[in-house]
Amino acid sequence: MIDQKTICAICTSPGMGAIAVIRLSGEEAFSIIDKIFRSKREGKKLIVQKANTLHFGSIVDGEIVVDEVIIALFKAPHSFSGEDTIEISCHGSLYIQQTILMLLIEKGARMARPGEFTQRAFLNGKMDLSQAEAVADLISASSAAAHHVAMKQMRGGVSNEIKSLRDRLLTFTSLVELELDFSEEDVEFANRNQLLQLVVVINQLISKLADSFRYGNAIKNGIPVAIIGDANVGKSTLLNALLNEEKAIVSEIAGTTRDVIEDVVIIHGIQFRFIDTAGIRHTEDTIENLGIERTFAKLGQAEIVLTLIDATRSINDVVMFLTKMSEKLHTKKSALIINKIDVADPEVVNELVQLGKEMQFPTLPISAKKDIHIHELTQFLIDSVMDYRYNENDVVITNLRHYESLTNANKAIERVLDGLNSGISGDFLSQDIRECLYYLGEITGEISTDEVLGNIFKNFCIGK
Amino acid sequence: MIDQKTICAICTSPGMGAIAVIRLSGEEAFSIIDKIFRSKREGKKLIVQKANTLHFGSIVDGEIVVDEVIIALFKAPHSFSGEDTIEISCHGSLYIQQTILMLLIEKGARMARPGEFTQRAFLNGKMDLSQAEAVADLISASSAAAHHVAMKQMRGGVSNEIKSLRDRLLTFTSLVELELDFSEEDVEFANRNQLLQLVVVINQLISKLADSFRYGNAIKNGIPVAIIGDANVGKSTLLNALLNEEKAIVSEIAGTTRDVIEDVVIIHGIQFRFIDTAGIRHTEDTIENLGIERTFAKLGQAEIVLTLIDATRSINDVVMFLTKMSEKLHTKKSALIINKIDVADPEVVNELVQLGKEMQFPTLPISAKKDIHIHELTQFLIDSVMDYRYNENDVVITNLRHYESLTNANKAIERVLDGLNSGISGDFLSQDIRECLYYLGEITGEISTDEVLGNIFKNFCIGK
Repeated sequence: MIDQKTICAICTSPGMGAIAVIRLSGEEAFSIIDKIFRSKREGKKLIVQKANTLHFGSIVDGEIVVDEVIIALFKAPHSFSGEDTIEISCHGSLYIQQTILMLLIEKGARMARPGEFTQRAFLNGKMDLSQAEAVADLISASSAAAHHVAMKQMRGGVSNEIKSLRDRLLTFTSLVELELDFSEEDVEFANRNQLLQLVVVINQLISKLADSFRYGNAIKNGIPVAIIGDANVGKSTLLNALLNEEKAIVSEIAGTTRDVIEDVVIIHGIQFRFIDTAGIRHTEDTIENLGIERTFAKLGQAEIVLTLIDATRSINDVVMFLTKMSEKLHTKKSALIINKIDVADPEVVNELVQLGKEMQFPTLPISAKKDIHIHELTQFLIDSVMDYRYNENDVVITNLRHYESLTNANKAIERVLDGLNSGISGDFLSQDIRECLYYLGEITGEISTDEVLGNIFKNFCIGK
Repeated sequence: MIDQKTICAICTSPGMGAIAVIRLSGEEAFSIIDKIFRSKREGKKLIVQKANTLHFGSIVDGEIVVDEVIIALFKAPHSFSGEDTIEISCHGSLYIQQTILMLLIEKGARMARPGEFTQRAFLNGKMDLSQAEAVADLISASSAAAHHVAMKQMRGGVSNEIKSLRDRLLTFTSLVELELDFSEEDVEFANRNQLLQLVVVINQLISKLADSFRYGNAIKNGIPVAIIGDANVGKSTLLNALLNEEKAIVSEIAGTTRDVIEDVVIIHGIQFRFIDTAGIRHTEDTIENLGIERTFAKLGQAEIVLTLIDATRSINDVVMFLTKMSEKLHTKKSALIINKIDVADPEVVNELVQLGKEMQFPTLPISAKKDIHIHELTQFLIDSVMDYRYNENDVVITNLRHYESLTNANKAIERVLDGLNSGISGDFLSQDIRECLYYLGEITGEISTDEVLGNIFKNFCIGK
């Protein structure tokens, strides 16, 4: 699947900027760049320059100067991809970016496929597969927590944990398989008790890693929060209040686009993704029909459910709704948020607080508009996540592919466990251990197929 | 206005990418980066490293690893800004970009204002003002022609032309002013005939430069083309046909956003900007009232007008329209485009072609849908621009500020010319020459005020 041709791509965010960076990687990187680069000072070809140096000059198309650029020069194997690599830092006009790219292609490079630089880094042994996957996660991480787990994975956290499990298991399977060579003699090189102990430990570790996926996935993609409520109970005011509470510092930095954080709020470094449930509950009538079912479906995706009510309105439908939904809501981290307490009748507010308590919902009276008790709400959201009880140093799985491999590895290791308990023969035991080793190896890429690699890297952005 | 504090900014296009580049420039660049950078290989501080080298390592916030990065290291005066400069090439997540920027600010840098790196380059004598302005033009250039004039200006084309004019004038004004010191003696150091010859030459050159602005401005911002026609005569099909003819190669390169070229077509490297005149002419009735006036207003902005008609419809309103508009249309580069010839009655097409010829409009029968004769239309557009008769090597003014300075310089030089012809005294002559020198100096920044600088650089993007 992988050819060795020299590849190129724009590595910086698409669009116009002060500068853009174009990367060129492969055996011919130097010979290609030397065809279109004229050095300003040295007058020498780049191919004779030292690694890890910077060179000022022009990119030329014949006699036409396309741009004045800085070239960063890396030599194999000391580059990201492990190949000879050139990074061209040019002025960030689309025209210049395209023209340089076309020149590189004309001189013998081809466009890199998504993730191809990272794929080559993997194939050249610069990182294992789990680390390569973390590169993509790192780039798309938008909160401190997601960044933390991706960085940990890129620096080998997940790989080390898996490799250590795998190495210990490998030692035992070698011993079990050695027995097979002496099957006539009925010897046991692998101490079955020690093996059993190890398998129990591995079983627990795999389960723990697999279990961490629910947390890891939520951290990576944002904790899904459903706000249930009528259209005008103040949902968007509430979102703005949460945003103002935590994101002011970010918007001070120019270049931050507000778009990407729409309906996403990052609180204490954890990203919360607000699922749109607008218009689900509107009148008493609609509760009876389609509404409930659709709400149920939306709730299925949520980890946290906020039932937002307007304390200035009739509470009859609130009571009816909560009664109907109570059982479902209690399967989630759910809170009753009583909004508009700045203008509502205090007695009604008290009544609602009382109702929430009776139904055993955490109940928070707030005013989104006047910013009253918003801090208590953010605290509720944070506490809900802390309930996962993972801490900073735990290795956390965030990748569905890893989760599937771990689940398969777990099934295999449980068969090993059963087999040991029932005293099955070494060849069956060995087969199940091999299967477990296979699935664990899939995670780090010690076991991989072109298809698996293709699936992983196709989701990368171009230029990485 | 300018403080000397070390400044930082994200230099790459805003948003997520494989990588992003953050620039740090100023006296404290090294001391600031050394507070948050841990080198991978050398273990040495960056401040002791050689200029123009690359360093792999981590950006850290205390014990937390924020990212693994490549540092490019430039030392004053051999950097873009002329100051000590660090460029941090990090993973392109928004979170990482923001976190590194916040760390730099925490350690003593401040956010760069728009264009501040370039402004410092100007103040440090790395480029003159006209060159600095060209940097912004270069970044926003989206066609080969606009790129060409911006690149020429950045490499000093305009500056050299202006400086050479100014130097020659300066020599004479010195001689004229020397006469003033000897005013008692009634001597003439400056040969009035030679001065007259020079002033005539300068007058012509300034006029030519000022005249080039209409072309330069159109090249920079796109040649404005109005297509007049009913809503369904095929305007968008025509635009697509023009796009397909010329832009296919660009869309093959991933990362090109189609948005920026909507209603803009680049043909042979020249950008044409299609002005929306949709719905202006709809029925015979509306021609009589508001329609005509609005069309006139739109036509005022256009350099080229294409009257697009549908050969399958009644031609009565076409005749009426052309008759009414004829005079106005002939003040522009105007053509009659007869569309849908693939399905129209050939006799009607002939009749329309005849009508166009009688009214002395270039007349092109086409089918936008079937791509018939589109090439002839692009040729008409290109020929219309070529009528400006500027060639590749002419210096072209693209900047309104330069145009204004040239216009003022022109007025002054014409007063000098009048003065010389009427034999006014040296002190009046000197005053007018000084004024001309002043305006020419404004262009290159030899004469500049904080206000002028502020106005120029505020329109730059952040990070340049």
